[in-house]
Amino acid sequence: MPTINENFLKLEKNYLFINIAKKVNAFLAENPDAPLIRMGIGDVTLPIAPVCVEAMKKGVEEMGVKETFRGYEDSGAGYDFLKEAIAGYYKKFHVSLELDEIRVNDGAKSDCGNIVDIFGNDNVVLITDPAYPVYVDSNKMSGRTVIYVDSNEANGFAARPDPAVHADLIYLCSPNNPTGSAYTRAQLKEWIDYAKINQAIIIYDAAYEAFITDSDVPHSIYEVEGAKECAIEMCSLSKTAGFTGMRCGYTIVPLALHVTASNREDVSIAQIWGRRQGSKFNGVSYPVQCAAAAVFTDEGLKQIHENIAYYQENAAIIAKTMDELRIQYTGGKNSPYIWLKCPNGMSSWELFDYLLYEIAVVGTPGEGFGKNGEGWFRLTAFGDRDRTIEAMERMKKLISK
Amino acid sequence: MPTINENFLKLEKNYLFINIAKKVNAFLAENPDAPLIRMGIGDVTLPIAPVCVEAMKKGVEEMGVKETFRGYEDSGAGYDFLKEAIAGYYKKFHVSLELDEIRVNDGAKSDCGNIVDIFGNDNVVLITDPAYPVYVDSNKMSGRTVIYVDSNEANGFAARPDPAVHADLIYLCSPNNPTGSAYTRAQLKEWIDYAKINQAIIIYDAAYEAFITDSDVPHSIYEVEGAKECAIEMCSLSKTAGFTGMRCGYTIVPLALHVTASNREDVSIAQIWGRRQGSKFNGVSYPVQCAAAAVFTDEGLKQIHENIAYYQENAAIIAKTMDELRIQYTGGKNSPYIWLKCPNGMSSWELFDYLLYEIAVVGTPGEGFGKNGEGWFRLTAFGDRDRTIEAMERMKKLISK
Repeated sequence: MPTINENFLKLEKNYLFINIAKKVNAFLAENPDAPLIRMGIGDVTLPIAPVCVEAMKKGVEEMGVKETFRGYEDSGAGYDFLKEAIAGYYKKFHVSLELDEIRVNDGAKSDCGNIVDIFGNDNVVLITDPAYPVYVDSNKMSGRTVIYVDSNEANGFAARPDPAVHADLIYLCSPNNPTGSAYTRAQLKEWIDYAKINQAIIIYDAAYEAFITDSDVPHSIYEVEGAKECAIEMCSLSKTAGFTGMRCGYTIVPLALHVTASNREDVSIAQIWGRRQGSKFNGVSYPVQCAAAAVFTDEGLKQIHENIAYYQENAAIIAKTMDELRIQYTGGKNSPYIWLKCPNGMSSWELFDYLLYEIAVVGTPGEGFGKNGEGWFRLTAFGDRDRTIEAMERMKKLISK
Repeated sequence: MPTINENFLKLEKNYLFINIAKKVNAFLAENPDAPLIRMGIGDVTLPIAPVCVEAMKKGVEEMGVKETFRGYEDSGAGYDFLKEAIAGYYKKFHVSLELDEIRVNDGAKSDCGNIVDIFGNDNVVLITDPAYPVYVDSNKMSGRTVIYVDSNEANGFAARPDPAVHADLIYLCSPNNPTGSAYTRAQLKEWIDYAKINQAIIIYDAAYEAFITDSDVPHSIYEVEGAKECAIEMCSLSKTAGFTGMRCGYTIVPLALHVTASNREDVSIAQIWGRRQGSKFNGVSYPVQCAAAAVFTDEGLKQIHENIAYYQENAAIIAKTMDELRIQYTGGKNSPYIWLKCPNGMSSWELFDYLLYEIAVVGTPGEGFGKNGEGWFRLTAFGDRDRTIEAMERMKKLISK
């Protein structure tokens, strides 16, 4: 009989958002007419931009005509037209990328989970807590030792490196999911210095970069000196352009990133990652890549920023409500997330049930993101404007009772 | 410094088809005007069916309108409308599937590579040789012991189980890539009996099922009694409906498939696979799923079978040429591949270079699929009709010289 990978038995039975979906479905079964407002999962609600629709339809039409049909991509790393568009976008942040440093994927979650394949299982993995569950789960699935550094009230939910602790791989997410905090250039430089001292590699999740408004918060870790020698960056169009149902992201592995194998062989991380992807991934749907490239055109950027501005206004409405209710929070600025302290000493899941059953509002319990999330709660600004206002009205009535 | 997964250093430097692409590009750099005919990589050339184009355009339009926009799928396992279409397709083969047994993916290669994550690294993996390189590479990346059973001239390149050998995981591909051989019901029953005696799990790659014409060759392993207790099936729309650039496939894990963990816990393979995918995959692009569902409509099946008939006629033309040249081969029937014995005692790569440099025809050296592939060569029937005929004319002139 085959053995299974028993690391799986040590995980939580379900991925956080699948648990939440189950609880919500149970509530709806009991209360089929409840006017539910979903502010839980970080999913967008505005449609994709018209330029993306047009570009994708054109791509689909090309697939239906012999002369323009496209089969397998040679590399599976993304078409040059899209990689050039991404490189052009980074130029706006004064970051210069070679096309071979970019690999297009079907979303940041896939690469975030799969990148662990190329590293040894003896590495010490450092994750800020609370964090996106995929960082922890994907490493635990490989049986790796995960150590945590605290993001908490004391540091504004923006963990700093601890020189006394050694790590080989470091996960950072800025602007942060779930806490909404965002590292400044100076703070990221501390992490880069720490990585260099430890000869560690940073896996940097920039999925929320499009929400940055502060000029001292970098959009890419490569805006900070030294990052190209120690950091892999992952980004996604899910939040940038509403691609959660379209599925497209990208991973940047600098060509300068090398490690030494036990036989003293110098190993290029980009090459070994390409080897992994060459055997286990076959590229992103061509019409999806057409839509993705359209995001980075002038008109595309204009259109997606209208959507982002809409969500930012939602975030401001939620933040204002928290101010009125004298509820402490981080985020709401540079981020679509508001990370709030549960009122009246409630636990995360108590507040989850309270809001669900009392006012039919779904949020995400902070505890699902790690121990420092206990007593905290995440609301997202990705909803509809009227529903966001309505949810805040309901919260005001409930909590000021 | 992080250690890398050193299993990667033991692999061939490049994935087979990336090596071939490099050699072809080098040839084209020297001979920019060469009238190249590609019969190497198993990539289709006919456009996707009109029903798929229309369904996908409709899906794209829905993504551009707030009321019909779709973000994340709840499960990431595929929309019910597509899973129902797949289950309906299997009913034609008298196979009954629960929707929870089906997970939609971005192509068989991804799941084929990723499924190894859920099994222990101590399993003995049995692979027929020659084989699709992904089976071997993805297991070697995890440091697993791979044993081989020979597909060779003596057994018509259709390996049979050896009762003297124990295995925990068994990879089978029928109709076979690269050899074009296809198991009959009776032959598959031998494998199922062998798997049951060994309490092994079969990972069954049915990617070429749409090319089956013989009535005693099953389209799905589940057509054979007992398979639901021992087999996972993977299939793809890449060859069925020309989706190599569209990216959609599916994996079937029967709910009956269970193993016992070392703590005696009964573990559902479907559940643990769902846990893996829940953390490392976010589902397939909605418009792509719309196109995929259209494949399984009556009109869709009619349209894709016109394309398959075109490729089958190409296969017959190649097979006839081999007959004329008295070159021994398997496949060409139930399969888009013709697996031929290299003439004049040439090695696989010698024939590759010979055909490339003498007549500008690209094939795939059998050696790239395993040791039993040495001295053999794969041609695909996925090309354009005129080019297929032209390539065969060139081969006739060259080889009968």
